Amino acid sequence: MQVINTIAALQTALQSAKPAVVGLVPTMGALHEGHLSLIKKCTSMCDICVASVFVNPTQFNDKGDLERYPRTPEADCKLLEEAGCNIVFMPSVEEMYPEPDTRTFELGPVSEVMEGKYRPGHFNGVAQIVSKLFYAVQPDKAFFGEKDFQQIAVIRSMVKLLNINVEIIACPIIREKSGLAKSSRNTLLTDEQRKKAAKISKVLSKSCTFAKSHSVKRTIDWVAAQLDEEPFKLDYYEIVDGITLQPVSKWSQSDSIVGCIAIYCGQIRLIDNIRYK
Amino acid sequence: MQVINTIAALQTALQSAKPAVVGLVPTMGALHEGHLSLIKKCTSMCDICVASVFVNPTQFNDKGDLERYPRTPEADCKLLEEAGCNIVFMPSVEEMYPEPDTRTFELGPVSEVMEGKYRPGHFNGVAQIVSKLFYAVQPDKAFFGEKDFQQIAVIRSMVKLLNINVEIIACPIIREKSGLAKSSRNTLLTDEQRKKAAKISKVLSKSCTFAKSHSVKRTIDWVAAQLDEEPFKLDYYEIVDGITLQPVSKWSQSDSIVGCIAIYCGQIRLIDNIRYK
Repeated sequence: MQVINTIAALQTALQSAKPAVVGLVPTMGALHEGHLSLIKKCTSMCDICVASVFVNPTQFNDKGDLERYPRTPEADCKLLEEAGCNIVFMPSVEEMYPEPDTRTFELGPVSEVMEGKYRPGHFNGVAQIVSKLFYAVQPDKAFFGEKDFQQIAVIRSMVKLLNINVEIIACPIIREKSGLAKSSRNTLLTDEQRKKAAKISKVLSKSCTFAKSHSVKRTIDWVAAQLDEEPFKLDYYEIVDGITLQPVSKWSQSDSIVGCIAIYCGQIRLIDNIRYK
Repeated sequence: MQVINTIAALQTALQSAKPAVVGLVPTMGALHEGHLSLIKKCTSMCDICVASVFVNPTQFNDKGDLERYPRTPEADCKLLEEAGCNIVFMPSVEEMYPEPDTRTFELGPVSEVMEGKYRPGHFNGVAQIVSKLFYAVQPDKAFFGEKDFQQIAVIRSMVKLLNINVEIIACPIIREKSGLAKSSRNTLLTDEQRKKAAKISKVLSKSCTFAKSHSVKRTIDWVAAQLDEEPFKLDYYEIVDGITLQPVSKWSQSDSIVGCIAIYCGQIRLIDNIRYK
């Protein structure tokens, strides 16, 4: 029992009884500094930081990609502990999917372009697992990295659709020294590929200068041409409205314009994006 | 950091982040089993039990009564600790009244009868200190004993007046073996007076039988006559509506009828009450 004599000390003691703000950082493990920046943002904004580590099978449209996906649970726990995470949630597939999840989400136009076109079913799987995590954790805030730029728009759409009361916090891309956007899949690249993969972000970055004196169409073609060489194979490069994710044809068309790329480097599919304005 | 694998265990861990229910038991110390029953009720209904121990000068209309009022802070802390209280708030007079409290509360008809008439200014002082405690603690629930039957009605009136969001919980009178209502002032009685004081509750209790075949007026007169002897000196015995606290003239007048007594036993003023229906 605490014996307290002043109102100020009393209110400090009672502060701990106030509702705690719960933050969630959903991850698929194989954690890198990008994830850890989300954990740090979460611990700075929330009283309780929950990280989930779960390789969600329903969002993989490519079975080989699922099998190859790196899994490092012990290293993940260590990194999360060091970053100040309070609870790590590491469920089994059976725990998250005791029954097959047959839900199909109407996620609107943001889900139909780019990744929606190239990875059919991917965003529906993302919506399945993220909605399950939101229902399980009931977080006040949830943190996502902007490398998966379209994913954030899709999750915002899902949250609206399901009336889930959670604030979605978008956090900036963390890059390797070379400029390559941090990704769990980077570990699957050979050393040679990893060096070459740095070209992706360099081209995106240079395209901002190119864009100043060229049309949207010319800029798209220029980026594609720069990356039209081994070991790259472009899925798409699109320049879109930052909110609606729909392609723009003129730079004046929106106040928020983002270029999104998906590109194979050997067998490994990488994504990245750049803000034009 | 906790590593959790099931949704059930996750939700149990997150439960602790839920808003805690804060309960307040305002006391003037010199604690007895009546107070401890409030603490127990509070700990059973709330996550955090705060007891305040403060002899509030502004509610004493009789300076001698204030000076005589028993003070046992160390014993109080021990009893509170044993009863499961989490925080005891023991402020100085300067802490609660850094400036003189000039507030006058319009507490309505419930405050004007009985104690309101016999102890002018008393309920205004009660409203001053209880409102300050409510503002300091911001409790979800506050616990008061029904020995101070009118005080509860006055506090409910104050809470309504000030729009304070707190639930007032009334708890039954705790009595000594003799039937005497537990009161801090009982310790000020001589052994002889304390024995005789037991007659108060006995008369009230018997008056319930008397009331079955007599009018309200006759019942009041009967109670007064029973206690018209040394060392007693009656302030008032009133039979009132349990909600409005206004005197009733017929038993059929209300569904809730309570008899309230204030009586001197030697120099010590005691109060008690009995429910007729």
